[in-house]
Amino acid sequence: MKQNRPFARAAVTRKAQKSIEEGHPWVYDTEITGIEGGCENGGLIDVVSDKGAYLGTGFISERSKIRVRILSRNANDRFDEAFWERRLRWAWDYRKTVMGEDASCCRVIFGEADQFPGLTVDRFGEVLVTQTLSAGVERIKPLLFLLLKKVLERDGQAVRGVYERNDAAIRELEGLPQGKGWFGGDGGPTRTEITENGIVYGVDFENGQKTGFFLDQKYNRRAVAKLARGRRVLDCFTHTGSFALNAAAGGAAHVCAVDVSADAVALAAENARRNGLDGVVETKAANVFDLLPALEGGAEKYDFIILDPPAFTKSRKTVDRAERGYKEINLRAMKLLPRGGYLATCSCSHFMTDGRFRRMLASAARDAGVQLRQIEARQQSPDHPVLWNVPETDYLKFYLFQII
Amino acid sequence: MKQNRPFARAAVTRKAQKSIEEGHPWVYDTEITGIEGGCENGGLIDVVSDKGAYLGTGFISERSKIRVRILSRNANDRFDEAFWERRLRWAWDYRKTVMGEDASCCRVIFGEADQFPGLTVDRFGEVLVTQTLSAGVERIKPLLFLLLKKVLERDGQAVRGVYERNDAAIRELEGLPQGKGWFGGDGGPTRTEITENGIVYGVDFENGQKTGFFLDQKYNRRAVAKLARGRRVLDCFTHTGSFALNAAAGGAAHVCAVDVSADAVALAAENARRNGLDGVVETKAANVFDLLPALEGGAEKYDFIILDPPAFTKSRKTVDRAERGYKEINLRAMKLLPRGGYLATCSCSHFMTDGRFRRMLASAARDAGVQLRQIEARQQSPDHPVLWNVPETDYLKFYLFQII
Repeated sequence: MKQNRPFARAAVTRKAQKSIEEGHPWVYDTEITGIEGGCENGGLIDVVSDKGAYLGTGFISERSKIRVRILSRNANDRFDEAFWERRLRWAWDYRKTVMGEDASCCRVIFGEADQFPGLTVDRFGEVLVTQTLSAGVERIKPLLFLLLKKVLERDGQAVRGVYERNDAAIRELEGLPQGKGWFGGDGGPTRTEITENGIVYGVDFENGQKTGFFLDQKYNRRAVAKLARGRRVLDCFTHTGSFALNAAAGGAAHVCAVDVSADAVALAAENARRNGLDGVVETKAANVFDLLPALEGGAEKYDFIILDPPAFTKSRKTVDRAERGYKEINLRAMKLLPRGGYLATCSCSHFMTDGRFRRMLASAARDAGVQLRQIEARQQSPDHPVLWNVPETDYLKFYLFQII
Repeated sequence: MKQNRPFARAAVTRKAQKSIEEGHPWVYDTEITGIEGGCENGGLIDVVSDKGAYLGTGFISERSKIRVRILSRNANDRFDEAFWERRLRWAWDYRKTVMGEDASCCRVIFGEADQFPGLTVDRFGEVLVTQTLSAGVERIKPLLFLLLKKVLERDGQAVRGVYERNDAAIRELEGLPQGKGWFGGDGGPTRTEITENGIVYGVDFENGQKTGFFLDQKYNRRAVAKLARGRRVLDCFTHTGSFALNAAAGGAAHVCAVDVSADAVALAAENARRNGLDGVVETKAANVFDLLPALEGGAEKYDFIILDPPAFTKSRKTVDRAERGYKEINLRAMKLLPRGGYLATCSCSHFMTDGRFRRMLASAARDAGVQLRQIEARQQSPDHPVLWNVPETDYLKFYLFQII
């Protein structure tokens, strides 16, 4: 990466100018009114107002609707090794501050919220698992990964390898090929063990969902553990079994962990055995949408239900249908629970806004004839910070209720 | 309390009916269309629809605009000793569940959210400090306090006395006299020591604000401690010094604890000495509105500012002026902090809604030319649960940001 200042510049509309000035890093193709100078896909470009005033510098993505991703609004910045190393160290220092010891497994880079638009890096102990979703990051990733290793190693944190999980369909929108594998040399086995909240998980970062493990519910799992003592817990959409295991470790009398995927159920069962909790955690392959109605009037009773569904919507267009899905499971859970029972419910879809999620919950409670007593409202863990001017970084809603 | 079912009944408007059916416990004087049968102030009364259908049973307050406070919507309930004991045990069991060991100091009864409209009970170790704000609770408090002692003692929790803090002006709205003192026998000294998050405080429950100590920020203080290591912290509106002490215990390099009240500053300093943290915590008597501008360009630098102001508004009417106050201190703090610095900011006013508080923060950030990176959004601790159908129970907003 020899190019430290861009040669090209793109003029943008006033609307885009306002958005950039308010701190949003995305410039859409339709907002660009003209481009001067040559630049390569993924290279740097200056963005200027319709009057030619400097607004910021970003990565250009020739194939993407998100044409430019702003990196800096400081015209004096030089995008050299020192710049990138500073940004990476800044991101790592933030994790050390907000996570403390929990930074051994955490999201080290959370894209836009860390001013690395299009880059995700999750740390599972000695392994870094990355996802690259912009042409710009794709171009400079050899430098970034090298520098990130350096930042961590200098801080006494060993890194055995960087594994790329670039098998995301969304890469096609950037004109990037899909694939996965070690970057810059074989890092050894593609499985590892991590410890979170004192619970050990096997992580298959080659084949697991996304980067292999969802780190964003770390402290929400802990909040569930705190309420679980003596309870009979139903963990819906259990995936790796994480909420179920936290409930069991918190002293639950019995936990039933449900997932529609037989693979997920096998994984949850394996993790239960790994922690000696298989006597408490029972696993079941079932569709939650069928199971909840079937439990009504049945002999199996639960006084703590956890609903951690996958994103029912990944776009604005399908949010109405998604809302019906959320309402169905929440209504069923509210009806199943006895008065005084506990409910943990969440949505990880950005398009299901907090306001909309809350209205859905209030409506489900009305229909179920119950009242919601909120114990706590939580979000994604702080290694996934929310940049207020980038609403896309705000996605996880997590509520704990007592049903009365 | 011999009267287990009411003799009187009040018919209410359709609007009031809807509100009751949705779970809100208040019926205003203007919503009552007629009263049949005799009842004493603070006695029980049935509430019926305009067609005579049973809606609920509540306490009547003859002098208050809030004329009836619904206790139950179950026509079969008998308001006898067993009923009240069950409700008290329910409230205590909830605290044990959500607080665990922290229930040694917690809010045991949070009024409407515990279905005890108009009653607050805070527990400071062996002392219960109460506030009675409705004619109904005033009438049956001898029974309630006796039963609450019984519930706690049966659970192995000693109670040396019940201290009433009824010196709240709001009691006048109910036609109740103001006063304070031990209830049902001298309980000994009116000071005690409590431990919260490992920090020891002297609590003067006779003369301190409200019940003597604000318990609702317990876990927010812990969140501040977690970020404090090595930082220079400015704790504004420190009162008893609680945020300052948590920051110091969390490893802050230096903490300046500010309050306009010389008494508060003395209390904070005493608490710092009590914990051997007076080498780290410096106290200062100053008006925060004057201090923050004075610090601009000065030699004293802080990289973590905490804003925990008293409620700037206690009514809907003054919320605009309050918002200007909130904006002023938040804007100043955002300007003072270096890029990468941390801000903890809160509002304990119900009338400053979360939506409004957020808009104020976004506007302050725009004016200060900074971006807000949200680490965590928190509320009051779970011993002060939020009943969704009673918006008045939702009051504390607490945000942790990194300023970038």
